[in-house]
Amino acid sequence: MKYIDIPKHEIETQLSGLIKEYGRYMGMGLKLDMSRGKPCPEQLDLSKMLLIDETGYKAKNGFDCRNYGVLDGIEEAKSFFAGIMDVPTGNVIVGGNSSLNMMFDIIAQGMSKGFGEGAWAKEDKIKFLCPAPGYDRHFAITEYFGFEMINIPMQADGPDMDMIEESIKDPAVKGIWCVPKYSNPEGTTYSDEVVKRMSALKPAAKDFNILYDNAYAVHHLNDTPDTLLNIFDECKKNGTEDMLLQFASTSKITFAGSGMSAVAASDNTIKKLKARLTLQTIGSDKINQLRHCRMFNSPEALMKHMAEHAKIIAPKFEVVLSKLEAQLAPLDIARWTKPNGGYFVSFYAQKGCASRIATLCKDAGMVLTPAGASYPYGVDPDDSNIRIAPTFPPLTELDVAMDLFCLAVKIATLEKMKEGQNT
Amino acid sequence: MKYIDIPKHEIETQLSGLIKEYGRYMGMGLKLDMSRGKPCPEQLDLSKMLLIDETGYKAKNGFDCRNYGVLDGIEEAKSFFAGIMDVPTGNVIVGGNSSLNMMFDIIAQGMSKGFGEGAWAKEDKIKFLCPAPGYDRHFAITEYFGFEMINIPMQADGPDMDMIEESIKDPAVKGIWCVPKYSNPEGTTYSDEVVKRMSALKPAAKDFNILYDNAYAVHHLNDTPDTLLNIFDECKKNGTEDMLLQFASTSKITFAGSGMSAVAASDNTIKKLKARLTLQTIGSDKINQLRHCRMFNSPEALMKHMAEHAKIIAPKFEVVLSKLEAQLAPLDIARWTKPNGGYFVSFYAQKGCASRIATLCKDAGMVLTPAGASYPYGVDPDDSNIRIAPTFPPLTELDVAMDLFCLAVKIATLEKMKEGQNT
Repeated sequence: MKYIDIPKHEIETQLSGLIKEYGRYMGMGLKLDMSRGKPCPEQLDLSKMLLIDETGYKAKNGFDCRNYGVLDGIEEAKSFFAGIMDVPTGNVIVGGNSSLNMMFDIIAQGMSKGFGEGAWAKEDKIKFLCPAPGYDRHFAITEYFGFEMINIPMQADGPDMDMIEESIKDPAVKGIWCVPKYSNPEGTTYSDEVVKRMSALKPAAKDFNILYDNAYAVHHLNDTPDTLLNIFDECKKNGTEDMLLQFASTSKITFAGSGMSAVAASDNTIKKLKARLTLQTIGSDKINQLRHCRMFNSPEALMKHMAEHAKIIAPKFEVVLSKLEAQLAPLDIARWTKPNGGYFVSFYAQKGCASRIATLCKDAGMVLTPAGASYPYGVDPDDSNIRIAPTFPPLTELDVAMDLFCLAVKIATLEKMKEGQNT
Repeated sequence: MKYIDIPKHEIETQLSGLIKEYGRYMGMGLKLDMSRGKPCPEQLDLSKMLLIDETGYKAKNGFDCRNYGVLDGIEEAKSFFAGIMDVPTGNVIVGGNSSLNMMFDIIAQGMSKGFGEGAWAKEDKIKFLCPAPGYDRHFAITEYFGFEMINIPMQADGPDMDMIEESIKDPAVKGIWCVPKYSNPEGTTYSDEVVKRMSALKPAAKDFNILYDNAYAVHHLNDTPDTLLNIFDECKKNGTEDMLLQFASTSKITFAGSGMSAVAASDNTIKKLKARLTLQTIGSDKINQLRHCRMFNSPEALMKHMAEHAKIIAPKFEVVLSKLEAQLAPLDIARWTKPNGGYFVSFYAQKGCASRIATLCKDAGMVLTPAGASYPYGVDPDDSNIRIAPTFPPLTELDVAMDLFCLAVKIATLEKMKEGQNT
């Protein structure tokens, strides 16, 4: 009978019958979930050839990593990054294959929504502090969003803290880019004093962020690695932990474009990031997190793996440094860094020579990072710095490359001297 | 000798000697690259246990997918999505594991930089058209950014185009969310007329975007699949192709959180997206792209795989539909959709009953998508719609769940009738 045809006096009778029936379900202790359009395990089985091996697809807590869910990463992946950055596991969010993408998104969040002080897009001028030479892709992000970038000179122990402490009195200064360990391209590790002063900053802008790209935390080249004071702890001491966003990734641990990234931050900041993240994605690639965590099932496994990396690339750094030493040191026309880790040697020619050196190399078939690339807007005020990236070329190529490079430095320097003579 | 000690008249001599030496390098046809801090192949070999199998890590064109690079995806992955969306391969960008994330980023781009007409964050009011019932996560994004969401009723053949054509006369209306095939939750596929009218829209806002989430393009449930007119071609005919952003993913093809996503758009739009993307990331996970492309090495392989999905989930839809038919149809108190594909059955109870049904189910241990979730702001004006997601629960659970659901519908309806009687 259609419900509309039920006589009014019968509604109550029917209803109480149904409610009795409903009582049975109430007593069954059901846990049924039909809320989301999730594939079932049998559907996921169809794609098992995408799994690495037969060790299964479940996280330590039993979660089926093939399906949706787990916004901030599986526990073992968070723990992996907590180890690298030396922070509590609960202060980590694991992201996709690119920590750069996480940083971009933080800036985009500043622009579109802000950090409690209104959207930056509405303000006339946003400024960002850029220790230089630094990572070109950091600067490219702040340039894209139209920020004014302020050069902060890099010194032997990190960026010029006096200048930073002065600059942050301007409320338009909303953040700073940092690569605190084996910095790109200097190979510098921030001294304890720099870390302490950085963590004690009291910026005029309440929505100021330290974007702390700890990209080379475990990337040592030799047996005398640098050590970096734990800024997370220092910020806590100073009550400044909410302005710190620390990043890491496995890009230079496993596969460059197929790894995992992470951000570490204070409880407050993690909560805010998650509130946004829950709208952005249903979670990062947990199968890839599993792959990594099974490979690095202990801190020792990671250390051993990084030592293998060093065995491959330390000889390449050695070629670069020994060639520079033999061919250029006697001439006293340049200086360069000798890092204990990271991916670069930072080279300083005499003023006004870097572009010419790059051109000479390029014309002979050797691509260098463009001169000036390590500075905001791609402009090195001294036209002196060149970033040398020794890891990729085979040793034999590197040998030729460094001969050519040293030659180009000599030519450019002499040309400059000749020019000085003529004027 | 230090260069500073070279007698002035000797500079020229030394320089010409060096330039002769440089000439030899010029003649060697060198191709050396020391520009970026890329790991070398031997370093990547250290992580080979992260690869699926021994079939190698090179794309068809020989690119080492373990390293940085290839911003828009390897050719075979672009081709895979080009097939799904029926667009040229060159009009595809392959993203990470979440098409939702790509959509979020498009909106974030509108907010922070805009699409040639200034940042939306600077405008007083941004409006977005929301065909409803629709995908709750779409609406959550536009709600997060503070847009005013305009309900566009879904009809049997897609959204109400009259209302859309009228709404876009308002320059504050900057876009529309669409799920054109087996829509979430209706299971509706847009008719040819709806697609033609959608592609012919002439919005007042020059920065209007159609966010066309083709999430269920190949997700058929039976042998009578729906067909969807190709909107990319239609937009080209109308010269409106720059406002179309079409999305797809493998989330419900392989692993829900470990697949790949893609956006398809016009040549102009792809160029603009890439200009931004190049600052955001160094590329998506190409190893995962390889995994997928080897598994789906032909369109037939994909079709066969999707037929296997249907074999698993079609019986689940059958349970839902047969229970509704048997227990509720005779009572004439509800209607529901009978989709040929997708992930949902959309159920309409009598007005004012949906929340009560959800509560009754919840109290007995069954989670449904919250009543109203498929509408902007989570508010169903009729409190009538419930989204049923049958794929995840095992058949046995589904059986109990649907009995309970039908019972709850009956109780809520009778309660409402009783209430009507009393007032």
